[in-house]
Amino acid sequence: MNPEKLAFVGGTGPEGLGLAARFAAAGHAVVIGSRSAERAQQAAATVKAKVPEAQVEGRVNQEAVEAGEIVVVTIPFAGHRDTLKTLAPAIGAKIVIDVVSPLAFAGRQMKALAVPEGSAAQQAQALLPQAAVAAAFHHLDAGSLMELEERLEADVLVCSDHAYAKLRAMALAEQIAGVRALDAGPLANSRYLEEFTALLLSLNKNYKAHTALRIVGITRAGGGPRRGGKAAPR
Amino acid sequence: MNPEKLAFVGGTGPEGLGLAARFAAAGHAVVIGSRSAERAQQAAATVKAKVPEAQVEGRVNQEAVEAGEIVVVTIPFAGHRDTLKTLAPAIGAKIVIDVVSPLAFAGRQMKALAVPEGSAAQQAQALLPQAAVAAAFHHLDAGSLMELEERLEADVLVCSDHAYAKLRAMALAEQIAGVRALDAGPLANSRYLEEFTALLLSLNKNYKAHTALRIVGITRAGGGPRRGGKAAPR
Repeated sequence: MNPEKLAFVGGTGPEGLGLAARFAAAGHAVVIGSRSAERAQQAAATVKAKVPEAQVEGRVNQEAVEAGEIVVVTIPFAGHRDTLKTLAPAIGAKIVIDVVSPLAFAGRQMKALAVPEGSAAQQAQALLPQAAVAAAFHHLDAGSLMELEERLEADVLVCSDHAYAKLRAMALAEQIAGVRALDAGPLANSRYLEEFTALLLSLNKNYKAHTALRIVGITRAGGGPRRGGKAAPR
Repeated sequence: MNPEKLAFVGGTGPEGLGLAARFAAAGHAVVIGSRSAERAQQAAATVKAKVPEAQVEGRVNQEAVEAGEIVVVTIPFAGHRDTLKTLAPAIGAKIVIDVVSPLAFAGRQMKALAVPEGSAAQQAQALLPQAAVAAAFHHLDAGSLMELEERLEADVLVCSDHAYAKLRAMALAEQIAGVRALDAGPLANSRYLEEFTALLLSLNKNYKAHTALRIVGITRAGGGPRRGGKAAPR
């Protein structure tokens, strides 16, 4: 896979920072976006401290998106709709990887929120009709991502209606040591991924653990998606 | 764990039959319920052929439930509400383990159906207010269950608001060779389990596989639930 320039929308939170560090370590140029240029630069400095060879910079979200080839969305769900609406012209027809799980506390448990479009990723696709949205990376523990020497033990399930976006997201996932990417079907399946995050957080709490997911029974690991979807635009 | 008499509501389908065979092999008495006494008896004969030492009989659902100590619900979702409403007096305050995933085909993909109560298991608890409902066993492959010599490689995630029902369901799960039971929190989490079945079916289709689930990162396996819930009634 050729190095790509990855833009993180809301890359200052733990999940965005962890993914940015892993992809920077894999040789990709990374632009960390934030509403605040200052916080973006601080996050970039954090990545640089972890990955001295990193090509990383911090910018406001709009500039980050303009600079990136692939846009990774790692904002809290509360800002998901408004942020993507604002960034839609800058995102255009790029590949978008949505990592957001729409969750909120209900008492002491995390609960999945209903999203009118079906899921956060489907909301992104509705707001970004030109873009090729994939949903992925919901179940990787942020703390483990930041421990760069740690080999993860996890599957990354990827949903998309665009075969080329799915392929790129799957290839990116497998650049994280120990991760296997799986084709989890059309974007409509993303809701099951997003909601399962609530279950993993519940397990984390019950067992004081940092859980991840493995799918058993698939022997043909790796490779691209098994079935179609829209072809890449020329 | 002492042998218990397990009643299957709708035990003639592949999932019910597979679980019945495994639990009969583990030494539990099993009553397979169906709307038709004849089909129930045929299913019981199928289990007996697999497990010659099985204590197994086939009865109409009502009689099966009356005979059982723990009721396992393995009917298709289409009949879930009406069947449980009819059986409510016979079920009373028993432990109910709901295995149902509310799914339907949407085109060529399985899609999770919205359930007014939140999930099939929450619907069961609403219809059976005296009962102690747990949700479990959604992700075990029916075909693999029927291969009794096959050691499964799977976690069974168990949700309930009743600690004693959760404990019993978890103990039953761990009588299936290779299965680890995990406390997946309150019954409200059952929706995430039920819906994830749609994702596993999608993976099965994409990869021509029989998938199951393992949770990575939990070292304190086995044992009971980690946190409270209602105590057993005296």
